[in-house]
Amino acid sequence: MKIFCGRSNPELAREICIYLGIELGKCIVHKFKNDNTFVRIEENVRGKDVFVIQTSAIPVNDYLMELLIMIDALKHASASRVTAVLPYYPYARSDKKDQPRISITARLVADLLETAGADRVLTMNLHSEQIQGFFRIPVDQLLASPILCDYFSKSGLENFIVVAPDAGSAKRAEKYALTLGLPMAVLDKRRDPLNDTVEIFHIIGDVKGKDAIVFDDEIATGGSMIETANALIEQGARDLHAGAAHAVLCGDAPRKLQESPYKQIVVTNSLPVEGEKKIKKIKVLSVAPLFGEAIRRIHEGKSLSELLRKHL
Amino acid sequence: MKIFCGRSNPELAREICIYLGIELGKCIVHKFKNDNTFVRIEENVRGKDVFVIQTSAIPVNDYLMELLIMIDALKHASASRVTAVLPYYPYARSDKKDQPRISITARLVADLLETAGADRVLTMNLHSEQIQGFFRIPVDQLLASPILCDYFSKSGLENFIVVAPDAGSAKRAEKYALTLGLPMAVLDKRRDPLNDTVEIFHIIGDVKGKDAIVFDDEIATGGSMIETANALIEQGARDLHAGAAHAVLCGDAPRKLQESPYKQIVVTNSLPVEGEKKIKKIKVLSVAPLFGEAIRRIHEGKSLSELLRKHL
Amino acid sequence: MKIFCGRSNPELAREICIYLGIELGKCIVHKFKNDNTFVRIEENVRGKDVFVIQTSAIPVNDYLMELLIMIDALKHASASRVTAVLPYYPYARSDKKDQPRISITARLVADLLETAGADRVLTMNLHSEQIQGFFRIPVDQLLASPILCDYFSKSGLENFIVVAPDAGSAKRAEKYALTLGLPMAVLDKRRDPLNDTVEIFHIIGDVKGKDAIVFDDEIATGGSMIETANALIEQGARDLHAGAAHAVLCGDAPRKLQESPYKQIVVTNSLPVEGEKKIKKIKVLSVAPLFGEAIRRIHEGKSLSELLRKHL
Amino acid sequence: MKIFCGRSNPELAREICIYLGIELGKCIVHKFKNDNTFVRIEENVRGKDVFVIQTSAIPVNDYLMELLIMIDALKHASASRVTAVLPYYPYARSDKKDQPRISITARLVADLLETAGADRVLTMNLHSEQIQGFFRIPVDQLLASPILCDYFSKSGLENFIVVAPDAGSAKRAEKYALTLGLPMAVLDKRRDPLNDTVEIFHIIGDVKGKDAIVFDDEIATGGSMIETANALIEQGARDLHAGAAHAVLCGDAPRKLQESPYKQIVVTNSLPVEGEKKIKKIKVLSVAPLFGEAIRRIHEGKSLSELLRKHL
Amino acid sequence: MKIFCGRSNPELAREICIYLGIELGKCIVHKFKNDNTFVRIEENVRGKDVFVIQTSAIPVNDYLMELLIMIDALKHASASRVTAVLPYYPYARSDKKDQPRISITARLVADLLETAGADRVLTMNLHSEQIQGFFRIPVDQLLASPILCDYFSKSGLENFIVVAPDAGSAKRAEKYALTLGLPMAVLDKRRDPLNDTVEIFHIIGDVKGKDAIVFDDEIATGGSMIETANALIEQGARDLHAGAAHAVLCGDAPRKLQESPYKQIVVTNSLPVEGEKKIKKIKVLSVAPLFGEAIRRIHEGKSLSELLRKHL
Amino acid sequence: MKIFCGRSNPELAREICIYLGIELGKCIVHKFKNDNTFVRIEENVRGKDVFVIQTSAIPVNDYLMELLIMIDALKHASASRVTAVLPYYPYARSDKKDQPRISITARLVADLLETAGADRVLTMNLHSEQIQGFFRIPVDQLLASPILCDYFSKSGLENFIVVAPDAGSAKRAEKYALTLGLPMAVLDKRRDPLNDTVEIFHIIGDVKGKDAIVFDDEIATGGSMIETANALIEQGARDLHAGAAHAVLCGDAPRKLQESPYKQIVVTNSLPVEGEKKIKKIKVLSVAPLFGEAIRRIHEGKSLSELLRKHL
Repeated sequence: MKIFCGRSNPELAREICIYLGIELGKCIVHKFKNDNTFVRIEENVRGKDVFVIQTSAIPVNDYLMELLIMIDALKHASASRVTAVLPYYPYARSDKKDQPRISITARLVADLLETAGADRVLTMNLHSEQIQGFFRIPVDQLLASPILCDYFSKSGLENFIVVAPDAGSAKRAEKYALTLGLPMAVLDKRRDPLNDTVEIFHIIGDVKGKDAIVFDDEIATGGSMIETANALIEQGARDLHAGAAHAVLCGDAPRKLQESPYKQIVVTNSLPVEGEKKIKKIKVLSVAPLFGEAIRRIHEGKSLSELLRKHL
Repeated sequence: MKIFCGRSNPELAREICIYLGIELGKCIVHKFKNDNTFVRIEENVRGKDVFVIQTSAIPVNDYLMELLIMIDALKHASASRVTAVLPYYPYARSDKKDQPRISITARLVADLLETAGADRVLTMNLHSEQIQGFFRIPVDQLLASPILCDYFSKSGLENFIVVAPDAGSAKRAEKYALTLGLPMAVLDKRRDPLNDTVEIFHIIGDVKGKDAIVFDDEIATGGSMIETANALIEQGARDLHAGAAHAVLCGDAPRKLQESPYKQIVVTNSLPVEGEKKIKKIKVLSVAPLFGEAIRRIHEGKSLSELLRKHL
Repeated sequence: MKIFCGRSNPELAREICIYLGIELGKCIVHKFKNDNTFVRIEENVRGKDVFVIQTSAIPVNDYLMELLIMIDALKHASASRVTAVLPYYPYARSDKKDQPRISITARLVADLLETAGADRVLTMNLHSEQIQGFFRIPVDQLLASPILCDYFSKSGLENFIVVAPDAGSAKRAEKYALTLGLPMAVLDKRRDPLNDTVEIFHIIGDVKGKDAIVFDDEIATGGSMIETANALIEQGARDLHAGAAHAVLCGDAPRKLQESPYKQIVVTNSLPVEGEKKIKKIKVLSVAPLFGEAIRRIHEGKSLSELLRKHL
Repeated sequence: MKIFCGRSNPELAREICIYLGIELGKCIVHKFKNDNTFVRIEENVRGKDVFVIQTSAIPVNDYLMELLIMIDALKHASASRVTAVLPYYPYARSDKKDQPRISITARLVADLLETAGADRVLTMNLHSEQIQGFFRIPVDQLLASPILCDYFSKSGLENFIVVAPDAGSAKRAEKYALTLGLPMAVLDKRRDPLNDTVEIFHIIGDVKGKDAIVFDDEIATGGSMIETANALIEQGARDLHAGAAHAVLCGDAPRKLQESPYKQIVVTNSLPVEGEKKIKKIKVLSVAPLFGEAIRRIHEGKSLSELLRKHL
Repeated sequence: MKIFCGRSNPELAREICIYLGIELGKCIVHKFKNDNTFVRIEENVRGKDVFVIQTSAIPVNDYLMELLIMIDALKHASASRVTAVLPYYPYARSDKKDQPRISITARLVADLLETAGADRVLTMNLHSEQIQGFFRIPVDQLLASPILCDYFSKSGLENFIVVAPDAGSAKRAEKYALTLGLPMAVLDKRRDPLNDTVEIFHIIGDVKGKDAIVFDDEIATGGSMIETANALIEQGARDLHAGAAHAVLCGDAPRKLQESPYKQIVVTNSLPVEGEKKIKKIKVLSVAPLFGEAIRRIHEGKSLSELLRKHL
Repeated sequence: MKIFCGRSNPELAREICIYLGIELGKCIVHKFKNDNTFVRIEENVRGKDVFVIQTSAIPVNDYLMELLIMIDALKHASASRVTAVLPYYPYARSDKKDQPRISITARLVADLLETAGADRVLTMNLHSEQIQGFFRIPVDQLLASPILCDYFSKSGLENFIVVAPDAGSAKRAEKYALTLGLPMAVLDKRRDPLNDTVEIFHIIGDVKGKDAIVFDDEIATGGSMIETANALIEQGARDLHAGAAHAVLCGDAPRKLQESPYKQIVVTNSLPVEGEKKIKKIKVLSVAPLFGEAIRRIHEGKSLSELLRKHL
């Protein structure tokens, strides 16, 4: 077994290697002056079971091409099996054709990974579960949800309610609500029929006097999270918490969240949370043991389902 | 252009041909005594643009194999393009891996259709939009929703509310609610923490004194529809209506629905509604003009997006 | 090594497992109320060498789809190799294009198996040997012929003749005749030039006063077998026996054969011979040791050719 | 439409072009001094419907590679469709795995043709009909049989019998017998049980005092034809005729056939019959009009089945 | 016919459309805040012959993913044919495995383009001609060389010599020398055997007192060009000119070239030469008419070879 | 591990087996009288790691088809991995499209090898390094260059110069020059502008009074080597030597080389040098240890790069 990583989240890769008690594989990954990505694997991988860790951080396309080139180099260097480990899957929100003449890019990415030579994929909390069907190669999806639930459970949950930030995430929120034994509410967002530019936010369900946890799969611009917070406060909710697997936090999301009504925002390190992203309100839970254990089991041919059963 | 159909819904195929003003292509489709399906296309199709209409009625596997064999026969008879027209897509609910070691059969079906030689697919109201991403060939998805909304709009909608029969269909219900300009509610279904075999149904949102339309993509056993009806009545809803694109109506669903609190159940003829399925409460809207128009546009290279813009 | 089976012939699968001294793998295979087939593998198969036993019994399409779904589930559950074990291959008679615009469905089935993820195929007595060429994956074909010959040899063969029930099976009959050291005859079947609806049956070769064994690869409706029997009796043959690898026995074949002039009909359990199929005249020979041994050798990388050399 | 040919049978290609009233496409096909085949198409073929005529004459591998290179050159020169026209299909007798660890080379050739870029295949009298199933691309098989039957019918057929030179060709012979309205017999060939090196030939069926026509799909070494002739004469047949689609005539077959008891040997020009192959007893019927008409119909998208209906 | 372009070189795309007298197709191409590229084609393309123009400018990976997503969107919007027009092919220098365990990324890019759905490729002056063999789809390679030669010829070429900046480009330089009727020289670059960090540059051939044109396929960092200039001057060459098809000009190449001994640097607009790249010494020749004419011919099925014959 | 060989260079195969200390695998390879190639593997290869040695000697197409059929037979006999060992790769010079409407046959050969079932390729001194990119399967390229350099170094190299026989091989010659620490020169070959049929040869660089070694990748007709020799002598070179990896030596090349000014011609046994090819001036160096060691390392999953580092 060999583990390599691209440049998107080397800290997570190092933590995973520590969990597994092995050294991170050596490879050179850089860009030439003409902006072409270059990869050279610095260790013999013939007949080896190789895992490449690369998450879809920003710059997204650079990290994706970096991954494809690494896989190609590993396959032509005769690795016996290459597993692409994608803690945060690229283009996961482009998973349907909800406008004419657009690309289902999450599917295109699956095809590109297969073309480059990936033999299997290990990922976490896909935006929609159907993305697993975009692959012909086996895909294992880990879940950050139990890690998030554990964290919130320990803090005590009396008089709490789970809130879905839109109708599309109602099902996901319901799972959290079931696990935590809490009631749930849903944000209903629509345009004002009298003035099309005004959006009206309405909470379906009773949140008055309750502490709320808003769960989503990822926090990107933070807009949806903050709209939900405002609507919750308007309808009399008390303390607000947010939970999400992936901390994309693009643009001025960190600042906006720090200034928002949330008391805390709980995420994982599927994406690096560093520098100005590391605001005070954010709590980062590590998924390194989860990925490390999954990699170990895949390598040894043991079942992953047990690992998932502890989860949502 | 030539249109052929299997044995799953010949009535719909005939209606589509009437819309298009052409004759249904001749072919022999039967089973030998050894239960092997046999297909012989009875017209020259060399260089023709061929559409094969087959819906996923019961018996599901027989109709699927029939379709695969027809496509194979057409391709080897040198049809220039074969479009599989699937008003109700087979195995659409098997679209994710929500248990260990199961098949994403909706994806497998996509692969089988491509293997048999289908060049494109025309379908309607997929269980999840991501299923389009299961195909490498182009897929056009039609929507029955505007036909259903039109129907309900004409009957007057004062004091109505749209209801999602579970959290997973909240997003779909939201679209109906937006189109019809109605508020919405969601059924929250969970096990009793004290007694695991008892399910508790709770409506999130306020339905008291309102007439409700419960929307789903399909009605199979009717169980989910009837649970929702009971919860709605318990919480004080008045008249109940049901709307769905696909009328699977398996087992004793027709009888149960006839005896249920619903005043009417509105569906389309994407699946044949005949014999004992044709209960009094059911209202069947035809999608033949929708499919006919889509086929005409595909054949002539015109845009389908206009056809969809009128829809949800 | 793991062995699973579909619902087409569990008895044979159990016998094979007894031969191998291992337990049949656990899996759930059933149909939902909407007639959709569902499969869940109940054991970890990561990195395992898996064999799936499914014969093409009636209902043919259901069992075929069941097999495809099982293979898909196993591959996505990371089985390292999946061998489809098909004692009676589906659609084997649809192996050529002898009419315009038909499907070579035996080839389509090969493509579907590969698409679902089968890595190799183990089958027995294909209707034509060329079907092996329909696959890109390796195919091993076992032969029931030595088992049938052994059985007849033990009963004594003095004054016997081998008869082919039509010109197309002359080559197969010749092989039996060579193995048993017997002369052969062929049934020549043609339409009366004076009256096109009347068929004339004529035996080429001398059968007078001889005991005859009519060999075919399968007995489906029994029509061909009974026509041959009548022609043999007309030309003075004495006791009649029938031998075939596959006992399809569809429709009222069992009754017709029981009432026919044959003294006995010898077949194998490549298809289940149960219930009303189990007529008195039928003798069922087990191919479980043959399949068990072949599976063992495939698993251990040993040669199968020795196993076949004992055969025709 | 453009027609090109390799170097295997330019005379047939020219005859086909005369039938179609078009000129043969210009191309350079030769071998470099290092024995590498070189092809350059000398006319623009962008968007054209191209047919490449190449039969499997000797040297077989050179002509096959020549064809593959021509197809590759045509596809990369942007021909819209390339049909490989193979009057005599290469490696047609290697169509099954009747020994361990051999290649089904007829299937491999199908794969090679598809890999090189062939979009369809037009061929004639395949050794076994199942070979059509070796292709994923459409295959049209023409039949020389009606041309042969016409020829024999014109000469008068009173007191004739059709003879199959072995059990494997009994079905083919039966078709000729049915078309010509003649009885049939089959040569039964086996080893002497007392002395394994001696072969015993026995005619099943009554040939005494009859004129016989021995039909096969091809005449290669002529050995099988001559053995049949000897057995027929031994059992009292009178005049002997031979009919076959393909005149391979390898080694000293021409001389042996000229010295054999046959009065005439009727073949087609699917393979060139020139030089020392053109013995006196041989009668060559042209298939150029048959191929020319088939090419015209394929190009114009008309049915070929009518063309075949006139045939066996 | 429709022409679309990405964001890499819209000016060239506009010039090509002017040459063709058609309007550039409308499409939206931008990045979401989460750095995901988004594409929506704003015109119906069903059954259309579509060309997408995208050159490999910096940022390379963004423009490549943009192109892949555009092709995917166009194919799923049912374009009948998509030609990727790549004036400067991405990763062209990664065309061989000259170190262990690296990727032949130019080949990977070819695979990615095919996977996304490209039906053909139109490009110019590939780094090595073998890259055409990396594709299974047809590739047309245009040549800027005659445009460069025309330009230099007009300026008068008395007492000139062509110089190859390294041994690997000797063959390319030889073609220029042949076209221009000039002698040639080659720069021999090697390490000092006494001091491994010192590179020794030596001109093979006689350049004394001559005006030199140094030809390369691209100018990236300019380093190789400037080393050649220094060696030429040292060996007594007079005026220096540089010619190259592709103006990558990365880093401080523009400044270094402006300060170099070259009198002028002649390139094409296969890559945008704008802003600080537009130094005084640079002369940009347009390839828009060349690409425009090639696109017209590809669309109309006319030969491109005539277009190339005017070239090197 | 098993090693098999075709009929192109059995002597080299035997040497390789001696190096490895294993026996050459048994197989039957011959041609039937109808010129069809037949292969039967005579040993069980189930699950084995198989290497097939076949070089592209004359007759080229026969040996290529022989190899494809062997690979197909091995894969269908369930070999776990088949490595095609091609000391001299077929059609290596057809690696680009330098004329309109020709085939890049080196790429077609790569596709044919993959289609037949090759899992990897081991070859030596490809005509251009880009050919590695024609394959999707892993390719290892060995280099004869250090073997040649070793040989020349031992003879003493004072006052020597390396010469490239044309501009296209300047890069290759440069590598030899760097390894041997020698200066280099290049033959510039062009047509006389006054008389187009006369070729003018001119050596770029100073060869006067020096001993020259002309390096090329292969010697086919010997024409290029002899032209270079003549130009060298004209410009005052002294003793001439030639070095090349592959000894194609077609036509009367042996005789011409023997009569040429070269003192010796050093090649390897990648192609058999036997019979009249074995002229006095030729020195054949064995690559058997190189291939044997590479095969051993591939089988054991060890790095090949060390093996290459000793090389150019």
